[in-house]
Amino acid sequence: MTLKLSVLAQRLELDYTGNDFDITGVNTLDKAGPTEVSFLVNPKYSQQLDSTMAGCVLTSGHYVDKVERALVSSNVYMDLAKIVDIFAEPQGCLSGVSELAYVHPTAKVDESVTVYPFAFVGAEAVIGAETTIFTGCYVGEKSQIGENCILYPNSVVMGRVVLGNNVILQPGAVLGGDGYGFAQTPTGHLKIQQIGTVEIGDDVEVGSNTTIDRAALDSTRIKRGTKIDNLVQIGHNVQVGEHCLIVGQVAIGGSSIVGNGVVLAGQVGVTDNAVIGDGAMIGGQSGVSGRVKAGSKMAGTPVMPAATFLKAAGVCMPKLPELFRRVKRLEKELAAVMSAAESGENDE
Amino acid sequence: MTLKLSVLAQRLELDYTGNDFDITGVNTLDKAGPTEVSFLVNPKYSQQLDSTMAGCVLTSGHYVDKVERALVSSNVYMDLAKIVDIFAEPQGCLSGVSELAYVHPTAKVDESVTVYPFAFVGAEAVIGAETTIFTGCYVGEKSQIGENCILYPNSVVMGRVVLGNNVILQPGAVLGGDGYGFAQTPTGHLKIQQIGTVEIGDDVEVGSNTTIDRAALDSTRIKRGTKIDNLVQIGHNVQVGEHCLIVGQVAIGGSSIVGNGVVLAGQVGVTDNAVIGDGAMIGGQSGVSGRVKAGSKMAGTPVMPAATFLKAAGVCMPKLPELFRRVKRLEKELAAVMSAAESGENDE
Amino acid sequence: MTLKLSVLAQRLELDYTGNDFDITGVNTLDKAGPTEVSFLVNPKYSQQLDSTMAGCVLTSGHYVDKVERALVSSNVYMDLAKIVDIFAEPQGCLSGVSELAYVHPTAKVDESVTVYPFAFVGAEAVIGAETTIFTGCYVGEKSQIGENCILYPNSVVMGRVVLGNNVILQPGAVLGGDGYGFAQTPTGHLKIQQIGTVEIGDDVEVGSNTTIDRAALDSTRIKRGTKIDNLVQIGHNVQVGEHCLIVGQVAIGGSSIVGNGVVLAGQVGVTDNAVIGDGAMIGGQSGVSGRVKAGSKMAGTPVMPAATFLKAAGVCMPKLPELFRRVKRLEKELAAVMSAAESGENDE
Repeated sequence: MTLKLSVLAQRLELDYTGNDFDITGVNTLDKAGPTEVSFLVNPKYSQQLDSTMAGCVLTSGHYVDKVERALVSSNVYMDLAKIVDIFAEPQGCLSGVSELAYVHPTAKVDESVTVYPFAFVGAEAVIGAETTIFTGCYVGEKSQIGENCILYPNSVVMGRVVLGNNVILQPGAVLGGDGYGFAQTPTGHLKIQQIGTVEIGDDVEVGSNTTIDRAALDSTRIKRGTKIDNLVQIGHNVQVGEHCLIVGQVAIGGSSIVGNGVVLAGQVGVTDNAVIGDGAMIGGQSGVSGRVKAGSKMAGTPVMPAATFLKAAGVCMPKLPELFRRVKRLEKELAAVMSAAESGENDE
Repeated sequence: MTLKLSVLAQRLELDYTGNDFDITGVNTLDKAGPTEVSFLVNPKYSQQLDSTMAGCVLTSGHYVDKVERALVSSNVYMDLAKIVDIFAEPQGCLSGVSELAYVHPTAKVDESVTVYPFAFVGAEAVIGAETTIFTGCYVGEKSQIGENCILYPNSVVMGRVVLGNNVILQPGAVLGGDGYGFAQTPTGHLKIQQIGTVEIGDDVEVGSNTTIDRAALDSTRIKRGTKIDNLVQIGHNVQVGEHCLIVGQVAIGGSSIVGNGVVLAGQVGVTDNAVIGDGAMIGGQSGVSGRVKAGSKMAGTPVMPAATFLKAAGVCMPKLPELFRRVKRLEKELAAVMSAAESGENDE
Repeated sequence: MTLKLSVLAQRLELDYTGNDFDITGVNTLDKAGPTEVSFLVNPKYSQQLDSTMAGCVLTSGHYVDKVERALVSSNVYMDLAKIVDIFAEPQGCLSGVSELAYVHPTAKVDESVTVYPFAFVGAEAVIGAETTIFTGCYVGEKSQIGENCILYPNSVVMGRVVLGNNVILQPGAVLGGDGYGFAQTPTGHLKIQQIGTVEIGDDVEVGSNTTIDRAALDSTRIKRGTKIDNLVQIGHNVQVGEHCLIVGQVAIGGSSIVGNGVVLAGQVGVTDNAVIGDGAMIGGQSGVSGRVKAGSKMAGTPVMPAATFLKAAGVCMPKLPELFRRVKRLEKELAAVMSAAESGENDE
């Protein structure tokens, strides 16, 4: 794939500086060659502008004078995403429905769909146009997969689960495994069959080996535009809003409600029945229970305002042993003062 | 599936109020229709009794008067589990051994077993009656799977691993991967081959993408009735007792011993060689090492009594910055008092 | 497999005591029978020397007199690894390329390779000599797998990923899933296609259901000899050095750099763009951000020196509620002293 800078600029509706040339790809400042476009956002890397071999640099107006050729952008990451998309080579090497796949005769599979060898599509499943199902995927009975989805190898969509359009399941993602629900009985934990399902909105991405359980009776829901990283656990009946970012190894307990635009950083734990308001941001490894206000920034276990946590855990914690010594000294000294005062009184 | 209320009540050995009718399913109070049965346990939701369309409500005697028809239960969750079980439609759409599966000629597979396309059953493996093995499962050589087990898609049972009866492996669960054992040598970490195995008792459930390593020489054991949630890591040689609840993303290090009826909440970490007594409950995200007494409730990293943790982390932590200021002020004031006293003495 | 003690000793270049005999296997002190060799490292278990039925014990010179026959070693774990290796029966029951596997006609697969049924090898993939690819594995186009590797069931190597020699992927491991990269736009998170790859050095082991994302543009790298446990998440562009130990459920955020010989204990979280120096050891569940010095031992969230953390979290935390009471009492008492002093002054 080769594209003239002028053509690329036109496609992205961006201005450019310097003379036109042929672009063959995109790379980092230190790796890009003279036929590649690179990018700069973080001022920390601006020194690399002096040494980069990149043929052109996508950046804000601020750095335009420092490079031979610039693509001028007011949202570098967004335009980078668009450029990478142009040059990206998608994963995979087959198309069409493989004769080595199993597709149930009652499944409705659009003729533009790709199904790799050893993928399974169950009874009455519906697969939308342009969707790709890689090797080892399981698509259960009566499930619905929208258009233009990608199910990477060994991802699992259990029966009756519903996916919107443009959904991406990274390898090993599991949608619709049983929720963790048991009744306590005198003879042990009795399984409550999980007869609900999972509904995934448009443009959702689910990371590698992430698990989203199906609801006990109703639906576990992930709304459109939410991006879930790897090894995340989402319990049964959880409701996650739109455009959230749920980072690696987060766990969300059953029936919790996460608003729109929420950011849960890595390894955050949310108990069951918690409620997190729109736009809240939770720091890494924090433990959330109860309610978190919309727009708040929280951290710690249990969570407190992030600024407080930074002071309490980052500044105070390491000084706790010293604080205990200081308090002990205070007690001694004050006791001495009090005892002196008392004996003074006695003197009178 | 339709069932008369009177028949359902008889099967569950429960009393009911109101006139008989046909039940077609079970649902939550806010979703249930007039031909469905619903349930109430938590008083928090008792207001929904006013607005529910449910044809009948399973609940304790306390709420019987508030609904048109009630199924009266002294263990609502248990009876709910039984009702759901009656109306549940099991996952899957095939039966019998698929011609697209691989079953080694020396494997002993009961004639009632279902093996989906693209599942693998190795040499001398034994599969008990009524067991179902979904697409993409690997059942290694000489492994033994009991009766009435379900291996959901892409779950893995490595060679020589033993499963009891009624065991459920959720999708992507891995039993018998190598334990993490290495000898330190001058040239790096030398792998200690893990030649032990894994033994899973009756009625155990293993969550999606959970991993249970095989022992170095002996067996990693999970005893009967224990329920393990998703993305849990259980190290080699670990011994887990009966009827435990091990919630999502818990990790248990090598050779640790977990008693009977233990509850490990989400994201708990247990180091290697720890011992947790019967009935202990460990709060979410806690870090356990050493010994935990039977029956104790612990939390924090490292663990302390849960009540102490709640005060220390929940109440005291956020006030730590303030405490440091208070102590500083005390030091100043006391210094002033002492200096005044001293100068007073000097005055004398 | 039977081996004379004298032959075993010769192979390992170790001295032995007692008369020669036939060894059939290796086991723990309490399980070993008279034809098995056992081992002792930890003095805690030395009492078992009295009761063990083991035919021979591998141990240091210190315990030689306490057993009938000893193999004398200065690095017991290393020699144990070698002995187990001799007696170990490898997993699996097939060899050669199965007719039920899919191997793309343009893939280059060495004739000594084993590919199990339902494994997929994509276009232009290269598979080195003596490598085994189990059931359900996906090996993407243009990927390169070195010699003597084992890809256990359902492990995934996406397109263009490169593995060295002697690499082991435990079941369900995912190499080369998309990195978690999105540009913020007015209409939501726009996916940045991840067109980089993953490079895995020689002798690396990757645990069950662990995920290693491919880089945005460059390579995520794990250097030779590093051992990664189960359910670990390694983000895009991360660079991990040689001979590291990365224990279960660790998460490393994007673009972080981990030096050589680093130990990350279980459930550690590392933010993106962190730098951890050679030989650093990070305690379980800790949260690392920024820089960690080479050779340091750190713990806590955020990390502090491990010794400080042990005191602050292990000793001080449980006493915090009491400390607050002590400070309150000090404040009261000091106020009384000050007020008395003041009234004394007023008296004058």
